[in-house]
Parts: sequence; structure tokens; C-alpha cells
Amino acid sequence: MDKLRSVNYDELDAIEIGAAILGTGGGGNPYIGKLRCREELKKGNKIDVIPLNELKDDSLVVSLGGIGAPVVGIEKMEEGQECLRAMRALEKEFGCKIDALISSEIGGSNSMEPMLTAAQAGIPVVDGDGMGRAFPEMQMCTWSIYGHKSAPAAMADEKGNILVIRDTIDEVWVEKLARSGVVTMGAAAGIAMAPMKGSFVKNYAIPYTITQALSLGQNVINANKENKDPIETVLKHEDGKLLMTGKIVDLERHLKGGFAVGQIILEGFGEYQNDKGSIDLQNEFLVFRRNNKMEVCVPDLIVVLDSETGFPIGTELLRYGQRIAVLGLPCHKLLRTEKALEVIGPKAFGYHDLDYKPM
Amino acid sequence: MDKLRSVNYDELDAIEIGAAILGTGGGGNPYIGKLRCREELKKGNKIDVIPLNELKDDSLVVSLGGIGAPVVGIEKMEEGQECLRAMRALEKEFGCKIDALISSEIGGSNSMEPMLTAAQAGIPVVDGDGMGRAFPEMQMCTWSIYGHKSAPAAMADEKGNILVIRDTIDEVWVEKLARSGVVTMGAAAGIAMAPMKGSFVKNYAIPYTITQALSLGQNVINANKENKDPIETVLKHEDGKLLMTGKIVDLERHLKGGFAVGQIILEGFGEYQNDKGSIDLQNEFLVFRRNNKMEVCVPDLIVVLDSETGFPIGTELLRYGQRIAVLGLPCHKLLRTEKALEVIGPKAFGYHDLDYKPM
Repeated sequence: MDKLRSVNYDELDAIEIGAAILGTGGGGNPYIGKLRCREELKKGNKIDVIPLNELKDDSLVVSLGGIGAPVVGIEKMEEGQECLRAMRALEKEFGCKIDALISSEIGGSNSMEPMLTAAQAGIPVVDGDGMGRAFPEMQMCTWSIYGHKSAPAAMADEKGNILVIRDTIDEVWVEKLARSGVVTMGAAAGIAMAPMKGSFVKNYAIPYTITQALSLGQNVINANKENKDPIETVLKHEDGKLLMTGKIVDLERHLKGGFAVGQIILEGFGEYQNDKGSIDLQNEFLVFRRNNKMEVCVPDLIVVLDSETGFPIGTELLRYGQRIAVLGLPCHKLLRTEKALEVIGPKAFGYHDLDYKPM
Repeated sequence: MDKLRSVNYDELDAIEIGAAILGTGGGGNPYIGKLRCREELKKGNKIDVIPLNELKDDSLVVSLGGIGAPVVGIEKMEEGQECLRAMRALEKEFGCKIDALISSEIGGSNSMEPMLTAAQAGIPVVDGDGMGRAFPEMQMCTWSIYGHKSAPAAMADEKGNILVIRDTIDEVWVEKLARSGVVTMGAAAGIAMAPMKGSFVKNYAIPYTITQALSLGQNVINANKENKDPIETVLKHEDGKLLMTGKIVDLERHLKGGFAVGQIILEGFGEYQNDKGSIDLQNEFLVFRRNNKMEVCVPDLIVVLDSETGFPIGTELLRYGQRIAVLGLPCHKLLRTEKALEVIGPKAFGYHDLDYKPM
């Protein structure tokens, strides 16, 4: 397959679906970002893509995206230039010109934000990202896991306020200070992290995830057109496993420290009619249990699709009575190292009794 | 009287007492800061003071101090260089050399912080401050009231984290972002605000408040030595009024959003034995009522002294059964303008039915 060089109008629709699936319930809805990207294309701006292996070693690449709780994104629309302002603040901070952008997380709305900002700023976006999915906290990206120092990082809200996290003792403190900042800013803001060298990004980005989201989305769209089973299509594309088809019989979800946290309980149907399932969530789906026994957990992807249409359902759109399909998709190997599991394995989310078993 | 040119070891004790009185219950305890200033003097560093009228018009003056809740200061000691690190971060932000420091609030611990940082950095401190007392929020200083833009402002905690509030839409947003930052940092940090021109400071500082705190404190110390009534001494020095002597019969105080808020109820004794009094507080004392009728409120100073010793009692040290004297002291005229009352009058604290009447 030829490498992706740019993203056009129709491809945005496919990326939207692919990114929402990879969001594992979180990451925010890519829809509004898609509409904004379309507007940029209509204006004649371009979404240029650099294949990961063509990045120059000394180019300056900035990971950026929105920060906040997905549930807030439903009611509070972005102004549209939050990430651009964060990027400009970062350029001022470093006195440098940024060569390319990359998504911190391909899953959910942050698939679109770097493409949008790239189109606005006239620079390319790198085909790859820092998670290969979505995670609730910023230190959970490969940049932080593999040694990049995210500070100074710049945040911008829709009102015009700009915060710079100048220096922190570790990556978790970037997350802590950004999180308290974004809660004050109204639970949604853009954030741009300290520039990375191209050589670092080539080694530690989850590779070609714009292409992956695009292809995944296109396959789901085509399956729907051709009356094929979209769930089968996703499983095949991502080498995944169907965990359960079930009905949501209990749903607990609340906002805590700017996160949507909670649990859903499932009663199986079809071939799973004798099973009870549960999924824990913190913005994203963290742990799937069958009959109270853990089967799949972070960093592997737990994906919830509408069992009829095959469309992904975000944690903020879960409701009592929904009939869903729960899929497990294996994560990238960069997320399965010992170093990575310290930050994004089950213990990092407070599940001290759970050991990660790659699915 | 000769203008104050430096602060020596003994003078720190007097400033401590004067500043605590001007803190109107809040501003934090100056004791630890005093000990740190002493250490600097022992090392041979100096606390040089510039009289306000000798400031050069184009010199760069930075207002800095600690930010947090006084009650936290009891259990969590500062590391000692928070304000210095905030100042250095600000110099980096502006690419400038700061000529002099000034206290954002003379009342309480922030009387000492600029003297400490000045001694550490080898630059002088200006004889004056931005409040002439203490207030709970940062936009309540004369710099903000009279048009200075506090952003970019730099914050530093004891761990080594540094946050820069790069740009805000107004002064209240500096406070909001700094407040959420300091809560995350552990409810105590140092903050340095964007440099001011000497010409601005000469016009809008509350003038000669280091001298005022020093002289007030010396008078109280002398009164105690000479067995004179220290309460009378304070009233005479500050042209104040005794509002009530009373016993604390009820005390409600809790931490809310990083502030100590609450109310104390007083039963009068002595010539006030038929009166009931109350004082509302948010870090500082805001409103004094006699028999449910407001008598003195912000921005005038409500001061609580131990009725026996005459020593000031901070809001965090109030307790049931204490016998206290409540004094009202008139604030500086820069705090009484229409512009000032919008920010520090009773309505700014949510007392929409109260009109400020200068005492």
C-alpha cells in the first residue's frame, strides 16, 4: 500500500470511525474535530501527512491534543483554535519553529486535533501517535514512557487564557498540573508538549496509526454498504476477539477529578446468554470481566460496539438497556514492555491484584 | 523620621508583630519567614530597603509572595526558595533582570517573603505593598485594581515544579489558574507577577508599609515592656477603634477551594456585656456585626487580638472560649476608591446587601 501523504474530505469520515473504535470508549468524540478539519479543507488548507520513516532525525515534532473529560465535550464545544494557540505559546516558549505535529492519542477526538492544527498552521502531521488507542492521563503516552520530558508544555482554553507548565519533577506532575488547570479552564483545553526530535519519534511512536484508523474506518463503512457484519470486520482488521454480546443492565458513571469513572454490568445474550460481564472505566474502558473473572485489561483495547450497527459507543453515551458487542483488540508491542506496563498496566490504574496477560 | 534603608535582626521581630496585626486574621503566620530572614542575615546577606519615592521610574519591580491557605502553613513548612525560584522563572520568561521586589500584601507571611527573596537574590525590597493588609485573592491588590496585568506570572512549589500563567483574559483568571495550581501543588507555593515599572509602583503601592509594620510592632513590644495597654497602643498607632471585647462562643471554619472560610460568634464582656458580635472570614476577617448589624467591613481592617496579651490571633488559631478584642482600623485611601471597592468592597465578597461605609 502506498504511504498516506494527505487526508482528503471523505477520508475524514473513515478516520472518524476508526479513531472512535481505537478510543476504547474514551478519547472524546472525533465528530466536531472532523467538521472543523472539513472547514479547513474547504478553505483550501491541506492536511499533509508525513510517513513516520520519512521524518528527519533533527526535525522538531510536537505532540498535541485536547485535554478534558469526554462527557464535557458533549455540551461544551471547542472554540477551534485551542491547540493552535497552545502550539504558538510553545514556539514562543522555546523560541523555535515546529516542523511537524503528531497526535498524543489516535483514539477519539485527538485523532483530529493535530490534523486540524496542522492544516491551520500549514505544517504536516506525522502518521503515528503516542498511544495507539486512548488513555485517560498524559503520562500514559509512549513519549513519556520512553523518556521524553513533556515540560515545558503549553495549554490554551477557548477564552484566551494560556498556562505554561514550565518544569516538573516527573511526567505525572505534568498531568497533575495540566489536569487542575483544565478543570479550572472549564474541563476542555488544548495542550502542546515540549518538542521531540524526529529520531525519537521514529523509535517510539505507535507507527502509522492515521493509516490504521483510516483503513479500519473504511472497512467498517464498506462492510455496512455491503451488508457484511461490521463486528467481524473490526475483529479481522485488528486481529481481535469477540468477548461478549450483552445488554447493559446496570450503569454507574460519575465525574471525579475531571474524569468519567464507573462501571457497566452486562447480561449476555446469544451464545453468551449464560454469562455476566462487567467493564470498569476511567474515560476509557479499563478491565473486562466475565463472571467476575478478568479476561482483558489495559493496555489491550476493550471496544464497545452497538451490536446492531457496529458503531462504537463512547463511555459518555452508554445507557441502560443498550445491546452491545464487547471486543478485545491486542495493543501494540511498545505498550507491552515492562517499562510501559508500569505506567499503563492494570496496577497503574489501581488494580494491584491484577496481572496483565497479553490477549 | 529617617527613611528605612535596611532591616536588621531585631527589627524582624517588630515587623512580624506589625504584619500579623495588619493581616486581619489572615495572610499566614510571618514567623517561619522571619526565621528564614534571620538565617540570611546570619549568612551575611542583607535586607536592603528602597524608600518608595526613591524608586527609579524605569526600574523593574516584581510583586511576589506565598500563595495558599494559612491553615496549611501550620503543618507544611516551605522549603524556603519557592519565591526565589518563581522570580528566576519570571526573569527567564521576560528575559530581563529584576531590579527590586515588593510585597503583594504586607499583612501576614507575605511581609517576610519579599525580604527573604531580596536577601537571597541580592536585590532590594521596596517600602510599600499592594494591599496595606491581607486579602484572600490576588486580584485584590492595588496593582491589579489600578491596571497592571499580572500575567505572565510564575509559580514554584517546594518540590521543583514550575507553572507559568502566560496570558489571561483578566486579573481574576490569574487568581483562578494560580489557585487551582497551588491546590495541586499542595496548597502552598511561591508566585511572582509580571514586572511593574517603578513609576507605576510609586503611584499605586500602599506606601511605606514595611516602616508602618515595623513601627506598629515596636510600639506593641514597648507597650508590653512598659506595662502599657497594647490594645490602646495599636488603636492609637493606626487611628483605629475598639469594636468589642468578647468571648468566642461559636466557631465554624472549614477549607473550601483552598480557603479557610467560616464565622465566629462572640458574647461581649466588660463594657460590651450586652452585645453579641460576629465576624465572617475568608482567610481574613471580612465583616464585623454587632447584634446582627454590620459595623465594619472590608476593605477596612478587622483585627482580633488576645484581650490579655494584645497579640494578634490568626483565623487558623481561633478556638472556642478565647477572650478577644476586636479592633477596626481604617484602610488606606487607595482601597476606598470606586474602582477599588468593585474588587475589595463587601459586594466583591458576595455581600450584595452591604454597602461599604468608611469607618
